Amino acid sequence: MIKIDFAKGNGLVPVIVQDYRSLEVLMMAYMNREAWTKTQKTGKAHYYSRSRKGMWLKGEESGHYQEVKDVRIDCDNDTLLLRVKQRGEGACHLGYRSCFFRKKAERSWKTTARRSFNPGQVYKNASKDERK
Amino acid sequence: MIKIDFAKGNGLVPVIVQDYRSLEVLMMAYMNREAWTKTQKTGKAHYYSRSRKGMWLKGEESGHYQEVKDVRIDCDNDTLLLRVKQRGEGACHLGYRSCFFRKKAERSWKTTARRSFNPGQVYKNASKDERK
Repeated sequence: MIKIDFAKGNGLVPVIVQDYRSLEVLMMAYMNREAWTKTQKTGKAHYYSRSRKGMWLKGEESGHYQEVKDVRIDCDNDTLLLRVKQRGEGACHLGYRSCFFRKKAERSWKTTARRSFNPGQVYKNASKDERK
Repeated sequence: MIKIDFAKGNGLVPVIVQDYRSLEVLMMAYMNREAWTKTQKTGKAHYYSRSRKGMWLKGEESGHYQEVKDVRIDCDNDTLLLRVKQRGEGACHLGYRSCFFRKKAERSWKTTARRSFNPGQVYKNASKDERK
């Protein structure tokens, strides 16, 4: 019987979120047991915000929901991988499709993607959505 | 100036590792500053083992090294994404190419991949390599 090991991370597991078609990694977040239950019940990704100390529905403010297509668990039962259909223009609160929009170059990190939406129009309070 | 935020995770950042061609997520691990420096210098992925409390070179026992093709950083500067060329038969110490070889089904987790190697032949001490 495989059980998600929430204990190792003090009640939280890291969750990698990947676009179900392109396999682009969109973001990383955390789930507690409540977020995991809610995600299964609704089919929409819910996470736990360490800064706000509570569960949140991804997209509740932006409309950028994530429909969960499948969920995988790693060999240690302590990390989840979600493949999702990303609703709206992107997953990143800074306006990009993926949170991983910067790539290491010789002496700096280079932005390699274009903004797909204006975060100021989507998030009333951008800092509020920095929820990890 | 973008700096990796090692402080938030008490000296560690989570690292998502993806096959650079197929974009399959192979594993998740952690790096401390030392592992990050060593990875940059050698081009081979080094991680930090929370259970063994030290840096390790992925593949040091199995020969399954990871050549780093590129590195991305997320919007909060606290998570890294590596795209790697996986040497050998796989990343997972249980003998699979990816650590995420089980998928959620109705009431259980179903194994969706075949073992690509025999971990007993590759790791003298399989439990030793459970390093997160």
